[in-house]
Amino acid sequence: MRNSKFKDFKMIRKLIFAVFAFILPFIMNAQEVVTSPDGNLSLKFELQANGVPAYQLNYKNKSVIKPSVLGLDTKDVTSFKKDFTVVKTERSSADSKWTPVWGEQKSIRNHYNELAVTLEQKAEKGRSIVIRFRLFNDGLGFRYEFPKQQELRRFIIKEELTEFNLTGDHKAFCLPGDYDTNEFPVTTCKLSQVKDSVKTAIASKGGEALIPSLTVQTPLMLKSADGLYINIHEASLVDYSSMSLNLNDKTYSLSAHLTPDALGNKGYMQTPCTSPWRTVIVSDDARDILASKTILNLNEPCKLETTDWIKPVKYMGVWWEYFIGGKSTWAYSDDNNVKIGLTDFDKAECNGHHAANTANVKKYIDFASANGFDAVLVEGWNHGWEDWGGFIKEKVFSFTKAYPDFDVKELHRYAASKGIKIIMHHETSSSAADYERQLDDAFQFMVDNGYSAVKTGYVGPVIPRGEYHYGQWMDNHYIRVVEKAAKYKIMVNSHEAVRPTGLCRTYPNWLAQESARGTEFEAMGGNNPDHTCILPFTRLMGGPMDYTPGIFQGRLDYYKGYKPDQRVHTTLVKQLALYVTMYSPLQMAADLPENYARFMDAFQFIKDVAVDWDESYIQEAEPGDYITIARKAKGKNEWFVGAITDENPRTAIIPFNYLPAGKKFIATIYEDGKTASWDKNPQSYNIRKIVITNKTVLKQKLASSGGAAISIKEATKADIKNMK
Amino acid sequence: MRNSKFKDFKMIRKLIFAVFAFILPFIMNAQEVVTSPDGNLSLKFELQANGVPAYQLNYKNKSVIKPSVLGLDTKDVTSFKKDFTVVKTERSSADSKWTPVWGEQKSIRNHYNELAVTLEQKAEKGRSIVIRFRLFNDGLGFRYEFPKQQELRRFIIKEELTEFNLTGDHKAFCLPGDYDTNEFPVTTCKLSQVKDSVKTAIASKGGEALIPSLTVQTPLMLKSADGLYINIHEASLVDYSSMSLNLNDKTYSLSAHLTPDALGNKGYMQTPCTSPWRTVIVSDDARDILASKTILNLNEPCKLETTDWIKPVKYMGVWWEYFIGGKSTWAYSDDNNVKIGLTDFDKAECNGHHAANTANVKKYIDFASANGFDAVLVEGWNHGWEDWGGFIKEKVFSFTKAYPDFDVKELHRYAASKGIKIIMHHETSSSAADYERQLDDAFQFMVDNGYSAVKTGYVGPVIPRGEYHYGQWMDNHYIRVVEKAAKYKIMVNSHEAVRPTGLCRTYPNWLAQESARGTEFEAMGGNNPDHTCILPFTRLMGGPMDYTPGIFQGRLDYYKGYKPDQRVHTTLVKQLALYVTMYSPLQMAADLPENYARFMDAFQFIKDVAVDWDESYIQEAEPGDYITIARKAKGKNEWFVGAITDENPRTAIIPFNYLPAGKKFIATIYEDGKTASWDKNPQSYNIRKIVITNKTVLKQKLASSGGAAISIKEATKADIKNMK
Repeated sequence: MRNSKFKDFKMIRKLIFAVFAFILPFIMNAQEVVTSPDGNLSLKFELQANGVPAYQLNYKNKSVIKPSVLGLDTKDVTSFKKDFTVVKTERSSADSKWTPVWGEQKSIRNHYNELAVTLEQKAEKGRSIVIRFRLFNDGLGFRYEFPKQQELRRFIIKEELTEFNLTGDHKAFCLPGDYDTNEFPVTTCKLSQVKDSVKTAIASKGGEALIPSLTVQTPLMLKSADGLYINIHEASLVDYSSMSLNLNDKTYSLSAHLTPDALGNKGYMQTPCTSPWRTVIVSDDARDILASKTILNLNEPCKLETTDWIKPVKYMGVWWEYFIGGKSTWAYSDDNNVKIGLTDFDKAECNGHHAANTANVKKYIDFASANGFDAVLVEGWNHGWEDWGGFIKEKVFSFTKAYPDFDVKELHRYAASKGIKIIMHHETSSSAADYERQLDDAFQFMVDNGYSAVKTGYVGPVIPRGEYHYGQWMDNHYIRVVEKAAKYKIMVNSHEAVRPTGLCRTYPNWLAQESARGTEFEAMGGNNPDHTCILPFTRLMGGPMDYTPGIFQGRLDYYKGYKPDQRVHTTLVKQLALYVTMYSPLQMAADLPENYARFMDAFQFIKDVAVDWDESYIQEAEPGDYITIARKAKGKNEWFVGAITDENPRTAIIPFNYLPAGKKFIATIYEDGKTASWDKNPQSYNIRKIVITNKTVLKQKLASSGGAAISIKEATKADIKNMK
Repeated sequence: MRNSKFKDFKMIRKLIFAVFAFILPFIMNAQEVVTSPDGNLSLKFELQANGVPAYQLNYKNKSVIKPSVLGLDTKDVTSFKKDFTVVKTERSSADSKWTPVWGEQKSIRNHYNELAVTLEQKAEKGRSIVIRFRLFNDGLGFRYEFPKQQELRRFIIKEELTEFNLTGDHKAFCLPGDYDTNEFPVTTCKLSQVKDSVKTAIASKGGEALIPSLTVQTPLMLKSADGLYINIHEASLVDYSSMSLNLNDKTYSLSAHLTPDALGNKGYMQTPCTSPWRTVIVSDDARDILASKTILNLNEPCKLETTDWIKPVKYMGVWWEYFIGGKSTWAYSDDNNVKIGLTDFDKAECNGHHAANTANVKKYIDFASANGFDAVLVEGWNHGWEDWGGFIKEKVFSFTKAYPDFDVKELHRYAASKGIKIIMHHETSSSAADYERQLDDAFQFMVDNGYSAVKTGYVGPVIPRGEYHYGQWMDNHYIRVVEKAAKYKIMVNSHEAVRPTGLCRTYPNWLAQESARGTEFEAMGGNNPDHTCILPFTRLMGGPMDYTPGIFQGRLDYYKGYKPDQRVHTTLVKQLALYVTMYSPLQMAADLPENYARFMDAFQFIKDVAVDWDESYIQEAEPGDYITIARKAKGKNEWFVGAITDENPRTAIIPFNYLPAGKKFIATIYEDGKTASWDKNPQSYNIRKIVITNKTVLKQKLASSGGAAISIKEATKADIKNMK
């Protein structure tokens, strides 16, 4: 196992706390202003006519969010939307540091000024709510709080009314609103064009529970005509429905659109409780968006008692072979009328191409072990894959019963002897109700057989029926699974779940999620060349993604059953660069061992690259166009750089100014070949070594949807000699 | 513990099995007739025009069910309603005996003739369904079967189309259709009057999910003008929605109305599967209805590996005191804004009238132990009662955390030292999703603390939201709970669940259910004097009821807070008789110990009466009017008789012809006093002893809503001497 990733969870806090409490009970048109520590961001809260709460946000004296109302529409008590008076305002500041269990940097600063406004409605005696604003240098977070109080014990949310009124027809990077899926291609267009433009995305993927009105998903990335980068999302989504955004494409106003439940309700609340934080990250430099830790800072500190068992993972898997030309099946037999608890799988006839068999898994273990990986994922090991269409059946899979050709005990022994962990797979087919029933047995089975990480899956419509992937019930479900997993010291990588909101701070065993269009779609319609130049600005704002990069055999017509034009939409080298640009403590080398064996010199980068970091340096960034990031490996004097571009070739300007001064380093550069391009010549690459110092600035050419990957070590005298 | 109730589960079967298979593939208007073993019942199956399957049922050449269609409407495959041909008919007979773990008799005969018709639709090649009919001497059972087949793997039920076309405007004993509750008073009226008559019942109880169209619940008891007694219900409700009945009050046609789920669907089916059995019990003697074991016979045999831990129970409980004038509360504190996992109940302030405290429970244990009871139920012991309105909250109760004044360990020790078991209480407030999550921990907690039986409760709307108490999801939930309980050797008594369908044969640890208007309603509006003269013909057809009789202090204005006219609607003696007439292996003495202490001579009957039986003799019965039943205690030469009447006083004619010949017996008769009546003088009673033989016929007067209870033992010489 990798051993360089962890520190005890010690919080080094310098808390500067100053409370200025003003009692302003009778002022109807109260105005309060709070600024970020650096003074660049300025938030104004006020009560509009009729006591409607509102806020506006400026950045360097430019308007980011025009006056926008705040509030909630409720079902069973008077709505929280008007007739408010301010009864108290409290101001405070904090500046502290905390140490994540894993992350892009070893220490994270939490620095903000805060304003908390307590509101009451005259007609609702004794009832109060609080709106809390936090201004960081790179953005705003605010949330609704409902303190414990006798007059407001429980209520049902009809809709949250929060607005984000934008200043113009910004460029948007967005997904169509859907209560169940986020696996659409990203649409890039002006806000005024979203309605038409998302049709292509919907045609490509198909909605699962498309929202009929014009809505987009978060994290929503925007760029204004005058060069402001704005990211809208939420932090700490706990016991609340996920937020999409209604879009008025005439006024450029956005407003909250929560996910309903089976009855159309959007949230069941009991005081004391809060909404998640609504976040607006802002800068005139796109790099600040990627560097922002505001969403993590707005989440609760780690709730786990111990974290020494949580280890970032580099893994391979019995997985990609399911996507390429019908080579293999998850299912053991071809009899697709199976019933868990009734079908005797031991008597079923194997179809002859079931991939999760003992011998095949051993091949992966051998290759992973020989190349320094931590783990091998195995999908298709368990009863039920013959018929998992879901929904009609609530009991789809067993999570403790292996197919007859998957020898659990022998594979445990074999993997352990090779220093490899097998990663468990729990595809639930979204039968969350049944998954919760099996959870204890499933996790105990994992512990008994040496598994320490699970990939969960939520394909298809949810059971309990009528619930959605993004609803309060499911949002709580994912957390329940992660909490229970922690009891068994199990790490979780959830696929098809609600997109993350920084909860990996609170539950660091939630290593990664999918929750966006991942590499698998390269085999199912393709990902656009700019896809991974957008994801860090959208999906990754909430937390790490198990994007599963590393496809070397990008032309899929290499396999039978694929059309000539089917291919991965990057060069081979860009696949390498993704290990740096797509931050995750869980990284897969997704291609087949035999494909890596054909390119072992390029594969060296995947073997070397770290999955946990002391520092990260966002060097170049423009959403949808390019990203260049350098990172220092956790606890090691090793650095790695990834640079990627969209369909346009470019020259990345890569400084190394973060390196210690006065020393020489060997940089091993994996670069696109001169004639490389994603569509014509993806496998053309070159590997070269150069000597660099912290003064060096590299001009590195990137092919169309190409990249560069660089590994850096301090140079020994022998290295210098060899280079000459 | 009581030791006379159990036998090892040995099935003594004499199976006479004869199969006559006819292949009739091309006959469109096939007609098939099958009769009951005694020839009284005759079932005709036929295909009507357009290949619509239909059946009719005659009893002694009188029509019971006129030609009535069979079939199902489906959502995603061609409906099973017409264009059928008969491709096979199979006939068989069985005559066997089986031994219930507990019951009204020690051995049950399963004797029937069977017809199974295999149907195909021309346009649906390779797809087949089977309709199976079983004719017993006392009734008909039939069901739909969907064999495993490639062309019919999965389907969704829109509605079941089964009709029960009656011959006239029968008298009905019915509940209004509701997907969630069966706690209405019973309405007795002609079918043509149901629409208006049930309004009173609805006004009295309030529906929870009333069905808007005219429907009634099952078991539905009917009596025709020419004296036929007909009972319509279902048997073995497994993985299917519960059936109500649409009523056409002009044509007297009934048809199936299944319970929908959150999406409006009525069943998710995967072959191989079956519907429950639809049952029509028929006789011209009402006693045969009560004696019928057809519903039990149509259930699967016991599925539990061992049953020696299952023991009928006579119990008292910290329960009735919650209903009488605000004496006590389930809740520990008066702070009603509590959150499981957040509220620190150890720091909460006790409200001073929390009944489930150690000292009070010990009082019940002392009295129960001194009087030979097996167990004491304690409600209100666990965290959450301060706020269990339900629905808004999914996490309402903890099933492992006791209030600070309920000392689990000490009460375990104390109860054990007194030979008493404490009965666990799990009120779920219908948050079934959360209950399933806690189930393993909750049952382990019970095992660790000496509990062997649990009373479950399902008050309020169901979570998962949009599901109903009677839907497929909840029907499966109840079974999941019972199955899991069996793994921990725990017996279950479920309240507010779907009404039973004989599943206690398959899961004999499912000792009893409420699932009807029980004694608690005497304190919440009242039960009509005829209520318990009806329940054995309706609710009890499916299985035992935890009716909780034994209220001696029937005038509730005895307690403060009650109006002068609030009272139990029976005499004291009728309460005694209910222990015999309302069969259950779980019987409560529901009143307060101090009330029993005032009437210890009458209480003697409750102390003596058995809760498990070798034989039962239905001696007199007319639905809604009167019932007289004698039973022989399991494994003992003791007999008990119960006779009850509705608001009309009557003279019960009680023979003792089941007693062994040539011997003398002492009958202790608990009878209404001469001036007794339920409303004017309920506590007037007399106890007398007489010597009887099997030739004796007793003419016993019963007061208005009164009764008689008799215990019988073989007379010793000393007895005879004493009597003189």
